[in-house]
Amino acid sequence: MIRGKDGTPIPKVVIERLPRYYRYFDWLEDQVEKISSKKLSELMGSSASQVRLDLSYFGDFGQQGYGYNIKKLKAELAGILKIHSPTKFIIVGMGNIGRALTRYNAFADAGFKLEGLFDVKPILIGEKINGITIYDVSELGPYVKKHDIDIAIVAVPKEVANEVANTLAASGIKGILNFAPLDLEVSGDISIENIHIIDKALALSFMIREKQQR
Amino acid sequence: MIRGKDGTPIPKVVIERLPRYYRYFDWLEDQVEKISSKKLSELMGSSASQVRLDLSYFGDFGQQGYGYNIKKLKAELAGILKIHSPTKFIIVGMGNIGRALTRYNAFADAGFKLEGLFDVKPILIGEKINGITIYDVSELGPYVKKHDIDIAIVAVPKEVANEVANTLAASGIKGILNFAPLDLEVSGDISIENIHIIDKALALSFMIREKQQR
Repeated sequence: MIRGKDGTPIPKVVIERLPRYYRYFDWLEDQVEKISSKKLSELMGSSASQVRLDLSYFGDFGQQGYGYNIKKLKAELAGILKIHSPTKFIIVGMGNIGRALTRYNAFADAGFKLEGLFDVKPILIGEKINGITIYDVSELGPYVKKHDIDIAIVAVPKEVANEVANTLAASGIKGILNFAPLDLEVSGDISIENIHIIDKALALSFMIREKQQR
Repeated sequence: MIRGKDGTPIPKVVIERLPRYYRYFDWLEDQVEKISSKKLSELMGSSASQVRLDLSYFGDFGQQGYGYNIKKLKAELAGILKIHSPTKFIIVGMGNIGRALTRYNAFADAGFKLEGLFDVKPILIGEKINGITIYDVSELGPYVKKHDIDIAIVAVPKEVANEVANTLAASGIKGILNFAPLDLEVSGDISIENIHIIDKALALSFMIREKQQR
């Protein structure tokens, strides 16, 4: 359970919204000094009361009637999101998605440091992408332990995803960003976020086709 | 507003869960004939009452005390999700993510048909990836109209994402799967689903670091 400054448990749904606030502050700070919760909520497509409630979990950044100081808010959120100290991560699975993520510079910009790559195919082992080495997946557990890796991106076929996730869990990984199209079953205190591209595409397809039938 | 068989509006959050049900039915059908809402909820990590409520929006697939017939359920959901008739899509932006999605076979397996690719870089125009041609982004609007494209994947830098989205909207696109790290501002009746990879990674980073401080 993650708690705010006054000890209130913070719902996961609020935590998941914080990076979005951070993006907006990053964009706004070059334009204005302060912003009201009303204006911020209009930009973000939510309600002013939700904005005030979300930000209140992390202390009082704003002053009634004066709006929020954006630079201060961004700095506080950077602290909360630990953006200044790099989060060490690895990518398991050098298929199309895994390779693309290896070259995705936005990770570095957001404070993530890519340490290693893993695959099962002998022909790939030892190859480097952007200066990062691909290791054999048999070395995954020892590597995570030795280098104290925080997060693993799992981008392997669904048939082997749970096996990979359990190896990671047993080696002390703290979080998994899962791109495999299944819900991982992992024991232990590990945080998991899923990016299910096909689920999102199917939901979209369904929504637009239902609209056409109206 | 999307409505179920009895006219009840279906919440977006339920619609977004349907592809996940579909994945489970697809996996279960080779193993068992029927499944109870209790067993299904255990597999999916939700509650039996939520499973029953979710499925009830789409008619009565189950029989009290007998469980749900999985093949029938999968067929009904395939119909609801329109998995048998292909959804035509294009990808705009041939950076790392766009290229990876071009080669992502799971789209075809889920009933999506990739029709065209778009980029702004002259050197890429005319190149083919997996037999699909890259066109100049200036042809985007006419192409969407002419080929009656359903969905566009937007994988361009955030600075140009809204311009691309508005071109798509003006050309009659029905849905956008947005990988650009911003919330698109598009006018018109367009469905949008976001895949914000960095937001998810930041949320994960935040969760694990908070845990370490306990």
